[in-house]
Amino acid sequence: LTSKLPDIGTTIFTVMSKMALDHNAINLGQGFPDFNADPRLLELVNEAMLAGHNQYPYMPGVDSLREVIRDKVSSLYKRNYNKDTEITVTSGATEAIMASVLSIVNTGDEVIVIEPNYDSYVPAIRLAGGVPVRVSMDPPSNLDDTFHVNWDRVSAAVTKKTKLIMVNFPHNPTGAVLTDSDLNELEKIIAGTDILLLSDEVYEHIIFTAQGHLSLASRPKLAERSFVISSFGKTTHTTGWKIGYCCAPEALTKELRKIHQFLVFTVPSPLQHALANYTSDSSTYLNLPEFYKTKRDRLATGLSRTRFKPYACPGTFFMLADYSAISDMPEAEFAMWLTKEHGVTVIPVSAFYASPDAIEANHGLVRFCFAKTDDTLDRAIERLMQI
Amino acid sequence: LTSKLPDIGTTIFTVMSKMALDHNAINLGQGFPDFNADPRLLELVNEAMLAGHNQYPYMPGVDSLREVIRDKVSSLYKRNYNKDTEITVTSGATEAIMASVLSIVNTGDEVIVIEPNYDSYVPAIRLAGGVPVRVSMDPPSNLDDTFHVNWDRVSAAVTKKTKLIMVNFPHNPTGAVLTDSDLNELEKIIAGTDILLLSDEVYEHIIFTAQGHLSLASRPKLAERSFVISSFGKTTHTTGWKIGYCCAPEALTKELRKIHQFLVFTVPSPLQHALANYTSDSSTYLNLPEFYKTKRDRLATGLSRTRFKPYACPGTFFMLADYSAISDMPEAEFAMWLTKEHGVTVIPVSAFYASPDAIEANHGLVRFCFAKTDDTLDRAIERLMQI
Ligand SMILES: CSCCC(=O)C(=O)O
Ligand SMILES: CSCCC(=O)C(=O)O
Repeated sequence: LTSKLPDIGTTIFTVMSKMALDHNAINLGQGFPDFNADPRLLELVNEAMLAGHNQYPYMPGVDSLREVIRDKVSSLYKRNYNKDTEITVTSGATEAIMASVLSIVNTGDEVIVIEPNYDSYVPAIRLAGGVPVRVSMDPPSNLDDTFHVNWDRVSAAVTKKTKLIMVNFPHNPTGAVLTDSDLNELEKIIAGTDILLLSDEVYEHIIFTAQGHLSLASRPKLAERSFVISSFGKTTHTTGWKIGYCCAPEALTKELRKIHQFLVFTVPSPLQHALANYTSDSSTYLNLPEFYKTKRDRLATGLSRTRFKPYACPGTFFMLADYSAISDMPEAEFAMWLTKEHGVTVIPVSAFYASPDAIEANHGLVRFCFAKTDDTLDRAIERLMQI
Repeated sequence: LTSKLPDIGTTIFTVMSKMALDHNAINLGQGFPDFNADPRLLELVNEAMLAGHNQYPYMPGVDSLREVIRDKVSSLYKRNYNKDTEITVTSGATEAIMASVLSIVNTGDEVIVIEPNYDSYVPAIRLAGGVPVRVSMDPPSNLDDTFHVNWDRVSAAVTKKTKLIMVNFPHNPTGAVLTDSDLNELEKIIAGTDILLLSDEVYEHIIFTAQGHLSLASRPKLAERSFVISSFGKTTHTTGWKIGYCCAPEALTKELRKIHQFLVFTVPSPLQHALANYTSDSSTYLNLPEFYKTKRDRLATGLSRTRFKPYACPGTFFMLADYSAISDMPEAEFAMWLTKEHGVTVIPVSAFYASPDAIEANHGLVRFCFAKTDDTLDRAIERLMQI
């Protein structure tokens, strides 16, 4: 058997989590909380199961969940999606991304991705027969800064073959968030073209700026051509439930569902019912910035007592840190060394680049996840202080 | 937007279930039980959630669930799969099928499907760039018979470009099951070729023959080149949980997981833990033939009091019935008429054919699902007796 995908290995998140287990390291790598979800949410799953919600739900998602999504997006971002024709519940954001890309990218179509990027984007484009066109973000200029999209470079990357631009804010792994001026630039780039947009907004509720999240759904000129994707995993501390969704205009949703129905058909009914019930109370997600800000600051303060240099983190539950005072190893090598020798697992930022070994991918940065108990964060800092 | 998949509509199962709802019809269409799962299984989910199993599990599936699958397949089919490298838990059989096909079918590869076939097979092949090659089964010769694979026609369909043969037994929608001689024929066809096999065995435990299910896993010459796919949905009355799996030799599993990790990444942790616990007791699935035989016979007896003529059903929870004494409408039209005018929903068998309107696809047959309470079956029969 000759591999159809010879250059695809196991996703970095699984590799690092397994390495953490094998070396009994504190896992600040893969993005998941090490505390449990709200018992009230768990009880709602129990109730849904006992009420008999264990058979195939409606293929595009349970009615009440699509209603809750519609109402939230309408209230926060002022766009009214039709729950019957424009909202689809998916197996996490991952499936929403794959289904969106497979549904509209044809052989030879170019898709612009902004690097560093989440590791499922490029394989999705490749599976669809598309050509990924990567545009690097500008690195932060100082420790109070984050990465920035260079819209001139995005604009220069557009050709007649550009079918789709993929964006992801709050941004994994850098924590960068969108500003109004970013959205203006994006509007200018697509004006007069047929370019579609995919916006991965799974960290929409984990944002620390006064302005809060700027969804592509909030700008009519962007929303009318966007797959806007989010997920309940990060928002309700249930990353292992794999319930996400996609809001998109009817014409796009129609294509998305053609794929969705044959990728997974639908996603677990009791979890959908419980999440609908639970997130109909908006405090379940609107309190997240407060909740995570404490953890972010605890990690930043802790890291400032080590030889790591943390960067600003305006959004997500990830923080980048510079380790150049400790080592000049490439990022992947450093991350493995840190797990094996010091019992703390992080993600090398180079894993979010096309050529993880290239110099451009190695800024001497690793990503820490702070969705952890105070105790976990403190124990990790203690270990890092030894280095 | 010009559709990439113009000829793909909404899956027949969703269309008919929605029509059943809209017309308040008794739904014997889409294959799902109308009774609840075992409360003990539901309680195990509750326990898993309370124990904190709500975050990303290991990408290929929870350890204990892959162990249970390994032990079951070993005990029933005498093949020992390695749980670490040869078993992957998926988002139902649907995702396992999609991921298998996407992982090994290249542009221009031919894939043989045996018609009538489940409606996700051909879209999966198309998405991979493959060419579906359909081989029709022989229709039953009398009411005590079922459809049969015509292996001569399968053999004649093989070319140098044949990459994969997809089979599905116990067979949806016909209820046909495999015999030793079928497996012998299949062995002969692949001997001396590099053809791979995909075996969708989701009804493996719903089989009424003395011999029981013959898995492709049970024949070393087949297993060594097969994706053997099954699911817990039909086996534990939880079709809405979407937990399936794929057993395949290491080289195939390696390719499958490359796709799986970017299609869905993984499937819900609490459901995996509960199913591992629950199905470690084999009586939970080994009692299914007894359980479903009563329902099958109740439906057959009932139908024999109507003008429908039921066919033999050696496996699955589906029964075909001939309606030619009632109408000469094409199958799809008849199924809609039956829902609207008589309040009973069934699936037209023509939906399992490439050209649902063609004469070959219209034998005057519809599919009844008997995974229903006695009361539901009796009420449906009462309605059908009026026709
Ligand atoms: C699907 S595992 C990865 C989780 C995540 O979003 C991350 O760690 O970046
Ligand atoms: C995924 S919905 C279809 C369920 C099923 O297997 C059938 O009805 O044939």
